[in-house]
Amino acid sequence: MTRSNAELIADRARLLGPNVSTFYDNPVHIVKGEGVWLWDADGRKYLDCYNNVPHVGHCNPRVVDAICRQANTLNTHTRYLHDGILDYVEKLTSTVDDHLDTAILTCTGSEANDIALRMAESMTGKRGIIATDATYHGNTSLVSQLSKSNVPTVGFGLGQFFRFVGAPDSYRNPDPEGMRFAESVAEQIAEHEKSGIGFAALVVCPYFLNEGFPDNPDGWLKPTAEVVRKAGGLLICDEVQSGFGRTGTHMWAHQKMGVVPDVMTLGKPMGNGHPIGGVVTNSEILGTFRKGYRYFNTFGGNPVSCAAAIAVLEEIEDKHLLENARKVGAHARMRITRLAKKHEFIGDVRGSGLIFGAEMVLDRETKQPASAFTDRVINGMRERGVIHSKLGRHKNTLKIRPPMPFSIENADLLFDTLDEVLAKTPLDA
Amino acid sequence: MTRSNAELIADRARLLGPNVSTFYDNPVHIVKGEGVWLWDADGRKYLDCYNNVPHVGHCNPRVVDAICRQANTLNTHTRYLHDGILDYVEKLTSTVDDHLDTAILTCTGSEANDIALRMAESMTGKRGIIATDATYHGNTSLVSQLSKSNVPTVGFGLGQFFRFVGAPDSYRNPDPEGMRFAESVAEQIAEHEKSGIGFAALVVCPYFLNEGFPDNPDGWLKPTAEVVRKAGGLLICDEVQSGFGRTGTHMWAHQKMGVVPDVMTLGKPMGNGHPIGGVVTNSEILGTFRKGYRYFNTFGGNPVSCAAAIAVLEEIEDKHLLENARKVGAHARMRITRLAKKHEFIGDVRGSGLIFGAEMVLDRETKQPASAFTDRVINGMRERGVIHSKLGRHKNTLKIRPPMPFSIENADLLFDTLDEVLAKTPLDA
Repeated sequence: MTRSNAELIADRARLLGPNVSTFYDNPVHIVKGEGVWLWDADGRKYLDCYNNVPHVGHCNPRVVDAICRQANTLNTHTRYLHDGILDYVEKLTSTVDDHLDTAILTCTGSEANDIALRMAESMTGKRGIIATDATYHGNTSLVSQLSKSNVPTVGFGLGQFFRFVGAPDSYRNPDPEGMRFAESVAEQIAEHEKSGIGFAALVVCPYFLNEGFPDNPDGWLKPTAEVVRKAGGLLICDEVQSGFGRTGTHMWAHQKMGVVPDVMTLGKPMGNGHPIGGVVTNSEILGTFRKGYRYFNTFGGNPVSCAAAIAVLEEIEDKHLLENARKVGAHARMRITRLAKKHEFIGDVRGSGLIFGAEMVLDRETKQPASAFTDRVINGMRERGVIHSKLGRHKNTLKIRPPMPFSIENADLLFDTLDEVLAKTPLDA
Repeated sequence: MTRSNAELIADRARLLGPNVSTFYDNPVHIVKGEGVWLWDADGRKYLDCYNNVPHVGHCNPRVVDAICRQANTLNTHTRYLHDGILDYVEKLTSTVDDHLDTAILTCTGSEANDIALRMAESMTGKRGIIATDATYHGNTSLVSQLSKSNVPTVGFGLGQFFRFVGAPDSYRNPDPEGMRFAESVAEQIAEHEKSGIGFAALVVCPYFLNEGFPDNPDGWLKPTAEVVRKAGGLLICDEVQSGFGRTGTHMWAHQKMGVVPDVMTLGKPMGNGHPIGGVVTNSEILGTFRKGYRYFNTFGGNPVSCAAAIAVLEEIEDKHLLENARKVGAHARMRITRLAKKHEFIGDVRGSGLIFGAEMVLDRETKQPASAFTDRVINGMRERGVIHSKLGRHKNTLKIRPPMPFSIENADLLFDTLDEVLAKTPLDA
């Protein structure tokens, strides 16, 4: 049936319960997508500068065809033999270090991170996990504990195993060599060891997207990886947001940051919206995990999911989307830097490839976050048909993370609109 | 690419790691499915009497069309407004007691059970969970603890919160009123309370499928539900296998067993193989859970998943699949009862609707399980083009659980073949 916006909102509250988040106070009713474009129920067109899940574009024809063809042929579990899962894992592992040669396929990034943490426990015999204090890695009982900003009030006592380090912040607290971050990880490792829990793993998004994608130079994670390895723990890189060429310089952000993780986890963009996630690791870690758990995932690695995921990798290659991210990302950075010269409240410009943004401040000297102003900018952009969001510790960083076929023209439309919105949005409302 | 069976097996070991289970020692390479039929790479046709995930038939045209149409129109997260998720939850909750009026959609049954256990903790402030000693409810860190037969050697200390009761067994240990089961639940509740952990929930598949689907009469769970409620705990019914009309008498097996659960969890057949799961509960429980967790699931409830799930419900209705399960199930029970008169090693005949089977014994007096013989029967059936499996505590119960469009003719082919295989399979190999 077709509901009005008011009816949709009322039915959500009735059928989905309270506290189900939407974008915007007056949320958008999206009914159609194509490439970098979305349409609402009134036929209004929006430039999508937010959604990284439709990585190769909304309703990408190659992915849709692959899903339809395979759904029409066979969709079943992996207890029968099938080429699809093997073709995909072969193709996927060919993009990473030779050391990372095996995978478990799941349905979500949450399931992938849940496995990764158990791999760390299996390998080390210890349970202490470290993450940053402004991140998100998923929604299972175990994995939701990684979100310090949203520490569950319940959770089977799992909170005791998690410790946090300050998220890197190149703007307010520069650490260009990554030495201070490595030291703070070392401190938390020591705390885990002192408490008797012991240190099992550090989990990070190597480009720290939720943390506001600080401008860390290439190779920045090297000292941290050294600290983790010296302590006998695992380095888990969650590439759910940062991977598949997003940064425009490397297929995976851990490559940009100069490290090879012990475990890499994947989700969102992997199947362009089709539910698929994964854990890539080496055979020793996989084997050790499988000794403890007879892990089986009914839907994980099914032929349709793998067909979708293969199509995503092919599309990235054939359409040169990594190169596109680099090219358009450089143009976007130029445009936003130019805006910063004009608009006082742009405190910092950051990003790489097709994850970019700017931190909004009330004052460039004090760097006081302009969080409410950022909200008004996001709403102003939406009014003018551009969808994006905000993130970071102070929720004052524009989060611009469009589908990968985003073009120079799309970026120009985005920044022309942003220029106009910034000029018209009052700093004090 | 197209691999030989030997290459498929070698590549699985190399790319997916050790201990990844397959069906049969010499696994089948399935490449195509349609309705109740599967084809292998050599063009050989198999009658599928195992797969409940393709609930309304392999490659069901209505479901495939729904997926293709929606994947080609829009696939995005639930932070935008969309009719699909609301239409589905409305339709789904109309099939259960009025009390169960809200839902969270996930990608898997594991994610659903992981939420259900946290709902129990949120509602009761306690953590003690009870399950049967021969079950399976999923694969997250928390939920994998529910499988006593496969207790993880690691798992962040979560094992302490789980206690087990003997699975009901109508053949070896009759309990026709369900009083003994209720008492054993009461005992484990007392143990949880004594230990200080406290009692939060009982989790059961209301038709006890993994336990070998004992012949419990309708209403059998009533005394157990009373014990659980009296103790202030939640009754969680996992309908991942038993739901969507499988038993042929009710849409949900909890209705057959005479109870209204506090939480119902769903998975496998929900999207006919498309990854979707769900938690159905009342608004109070949902609201309490959401106070503790800002739960969000990127893929959960997306428009494509909901389109697939709506098509499944429509197909069940339009094709009268519940009635078909009842009719064909009755015929199957007649045929298998007739076989039991002829073949000495059929110790017990059980089932309802399209979950049925027989327990194989070496001796009807001693009821000694014929587990190895059951394996040989399953392999013999496969050689003759019929796929099914085994389950139960002794792995000696034929597990026959075909897609719901299974016909009288399909059942006749199954039992004609079984008759032949039983006659030719040696009891001692």
